Amino acid sequence: MFEDAELGHSVDKDTYEARVPALRSELLNVQFTLKDTRAFPVVLLVGGVEGGGRGETVNTLTSWLDPRHVEVNGMGDPSDEELERPRMWRFWRALPPKGKIGIFFGSWYTLPILQASLVKGAGRWDKLDRRIEEIVRFERMLAEEGALVLKFWFHLSKNAQRKRIKELKKDPHTRWRVSGVDEDYFKKYDRFREVSARTIRHTSTALAPWLVVEGVDRRYRELFVAEELLRAVKTRLESPKVARPTPARPSDAPEVDGRRTLLTELDLTKKLAKPKYEKDLEKWQGHLALLTRHKRFREHSVVCVFEGNDAAGKGGNIRRVTGAVDARVVRVVPIAAPTDEEKAHPYLWRFWRQLPRRGNITIFDRSWYGRVLVERVEGFCSPYDWERAYGEINDFEEEMVNHGIVVAKFWLAISKAEQLRRFKEREQVSFKTFKITEEDWRNRKKWDAYSDAVCDMVARTSTTKAPWTMVEANDKYYARVKVLKTLCERLEKVLDD
Amino acid sequence: MFEDAELGHSVDKDTYEARVPALRSELLNVQFTLKDTRAFPVVLLVGGVEGGGRGETVNTLTSWLDPRHVEVNGMGDPSDEELERPRMWRFWRALPPKGKIGIFFGSWYTLPILQASLVKGAGRWDKLDRRIEEIVRFERMLAEEGALVLKFWFHLSKNAQRKRIKELKKDPHTRWRVSGVDEDYFKKYDRFREVSARTIRHTSTALAPWLVVEGVDRRYRELFVAEELLRAVKTRLESPKVARPTPARPSDAPEVDGRRTLLTELDLTKKLAKPKYEKDLEKWQGHLALLTRHKRFREHSVVCVFEGNDAAGKGGNIRRVTGAVDARVVRVVPIAAPTDEEKAHPYLWRFWRQLPRRGNITIFDRSWYGRVLVERVEGFCSPYDWERAYGEINDFEEEMVNHGIVVAKFWLAISKAEQLRRFKEREQVSFKTFKITEEDWRNRKKWDAYSDAVCDMVARTSTTKAPWTMVEANDKYYARVKVLKTLCERLEKVLDD
Repeated sequence: MFEDAELGHSVDKDTYEARVPALRSELLNVQFTLKDTRAFPVVLLVGGVEGGGRGETVNTLTSWLDPRHVEVNGMGDPSDEELERPRMWRFWRALPPKGKIGIFFGSWYTLPILQASLVKGAGRWDKLDRRIEEIVRFERMLAEEGALVLKFWFHLSKNAQRKRIKELKKDPHTRWRVSGVDEDYFKKYDRFREVSARTIRHTSTALAPWLVVEGVDRRYRELFVAEELLRAVKTRLESPKVARPTPARPSDAPEVDGRRTLLTELDLTKKLAKPKYEKDLEKWQGHLALLTRHKRFREHSVVCVFEGNDAAGKGGNIRRVTGAVDARVVRVVPIAAPTDEEKAHPYLWRFWRQLPRRGNITIFDRSWYGRVLVERVEGFCSPYDWERAYGEINDFEEEMVNHGIVVAKFWLAISKAEQLRRFKEREQVSFKTFKITEEDWRNRKKWDAYSDAVCDMVARTSTTKAPWTMVEANDKYYARVKVLKTLCERLEKVLDD
Repeated sequence: MFEDAELGHSVDKDTYEARVPALRSELLNVQFTLKDTRAFPVVLLVGGVEGGGRGETVNTLTSWLDPRHVEVNGMGDPSDEELERPRMWRFWRALPPKGKIGIFFGSWYTLPILQASLVKGAGRWDKLDRRIEEIVRFERMLAEEGALVLKFWFHLSKNAQRKRIKELKKDPHTRWRVSGVDEDYFKKYDRFREVSARTIRHTSTALAPWLVVEGVDRRYRELFVAEELLRAVKTRLESPKVARPTPARPSDAPEVDGRRTLLTELDLTKKLAKPKYEKDLEKWQGHLALLTRHKRFREHSVVCVFEGNDAAGKGGNIRRVTGAVDARVVRVVPIAAPTDEEKAHPYLWRFWRQLPRRGNITIFDRSWYGRVLVERVEGFCSPYDWERAYGEINDFEEEMVNHGIVVAKFWLAISKAEQLRRFKEREQVSFKTFKITEEDWRNRKKWDAYSDAVCDMVARTSTTKAPWTMVEANDKYYARVKVLKTLCERLEKVLDD
């Protein structure tokens, strides 16, 4: 892994000075094409050993590029804001949009490598390998969403590192950079090296490769990084767009026993009389209010997802939840077509940015499931893309749950006849007409395709930790009580744990 | 996951009989197109709960297809032959070639799911999840190599299973099928269900999906499986070939400090005088002979890989190894262009089939590294394909090492000048002319491209458990002793462990 980066690579002054002017203008050129075409984002990670010249190289690189379109993220210790969100939140929020270069100085690799380096024995591999698999999936997602992912690892041999740090310590201008690096640090070098080699090996992929740079010689490492960046961006700009692979099976369900599905088997006649509803509503809203004031609630947060047929009553259900909770801790996020900024990022980005702090509730009125519902049915993305979304969504929700977030997902189901009745009512009642559009009628024509998509969605993403609740919603009273009751039970279970 | 498969799906007799004749002829039709075009292999896995009707469905399906082009693999307990090879060997040997349908009744899922079902507590997930990741990578490789992978899971609810097994037990003709299924088995049902749900979720991908079939009704499950198979094969036959994604970085090395590489830094002047060589050769050959007679050697086996520049002396080196070992336990496998049969399988197939039994040594004269050497340089596969090969090869070798195989890989390096000298000698000495061809001269012209490929290969696939040994081979004596010595040391370490 590190053999090449211990050969003592260097570049002499003349070669360096002869190359730099042309290199800089070529870099600026591709940077401008990238910016103008907004073709893709560049995610550039910088990692490596202490004293390997990461910071200086990043500084040189940014001075050669137009700084307005480069974002350098010095990912040091996480802030309070960040600690209250799942681990990957801080990296998601820093992802560059299409057309920009995002440099991550420190990344999702830093902590796993450091932690594994501190542990002795074979046990450390288990945790590290798990993180490695998560990272591989995450970076694959970035790449499939179009990002150009390049990862530079600055390496020094043990002796080179010792020498370099001695030099840095001698010079009063650079001494601060290596404070805390002592003999103990070198002792850990071997373990750090072993852990990084394994990590780099398992996370080097065609779509997100590691490039190991020898960090001894300033001119060499600068040219190396700049040339690789230049070549990679240039090549990608010139590459034709590649079609998506075809999934192994067609996406519509085969007609075997006449469309008996999870949805057709729901008992939509379930209902609640008004007096009982009013009693139950009060009971469960009160219960929810108490739960959100529970002292352990401050260690958790809640993410609710409301999906359902058009006119199934998402809004009404959401209001019954928010009505029970202190307005300062609850936020409703309605999901419509993505903004320009959101379109310039992977599709999950706009949901990541909305994740609540601890002690808070975020309610998504429609959600990331749009990827496997409307985007699938309308053909806004390829079958391969929404197929991979199931796994990506499971990963996303697992991150939330592992962070202590309660993830409650509701599918509000009404019958086709009930939908027609509500559509017509909306057209006739003046204060409801804003709720019905041409699009609703168009969607209704695709009822079966949507039903297929919903069944697949539930089958693929209803997990023990983040289950779907199917809500029979022909009767609004019944639905609202079921939602509140389910939410209370989910929350209670976590707070009692 | 199993919600849909507990709805009580069934197909009535009339519907079934109306559909089957057409279905059978459609199935035969696509099967013949598949066979004639040899477009791809179909890998069809069958798993699920006891009594779910797996066997009967497979029997019906094969009776509907032309049995000459279907291979049913009842993967029961592994044979002695199989136990002496790495875990996946038995599945590799059973993989269908292009144009055929291979049905795996029991598969690489069986053992991991059973084992995890037997263990209680959270610890069981660690091992299962690791296997899951390996399986995902394996199936991705199959799919990227062109296989159509379909996986059917036959499900029964706990009650349905109990009922079904009671029925089977009553009938003397079917009683044998459920011997050993007792109350204890049902107790384990819940854990089995939880484990399979997790496994299915994490291994359902666009390129290798799981299809969950409700196993209660014979007609339903037969139609379900046959229709899905039909649709999937048909769709794939009609799909256009998709171009490979472009890797994030171009594959040639950037010119930063004038091609200083692992190879250029080798000290090719190293040599051994003849008397010293003869002494050393005897010593290490004797040592190797003893090691292969060590009683613990029977628990291990050895896989040697010889790669190197043309005329670097692979043959001579190999003869020095085989000369030291009992001819009954060593086999040399020369790798030339693949046969038709080999071309009909994933590229690693022809190496898997050659893995030695315990107590044996297999020497590969050229190897799977052809994928990242000649295939890369000559453009026989796309950059994306050889890029993914690094990971696939690491997985392959890890499987060997985990099974107790010593994997020793030698790169024999000579200088360009020394190669020229040897080529000329081969042309002049009559009994050596067979060793030199036009191709050797053609390869020589691509010296730099091959050097890049070799450096990347070593950087990406030299692991702690399966390291590369770079052998300075300008002097044949020096090279031979280094190879023998290295091999002895690797073997010694394992036998002493």
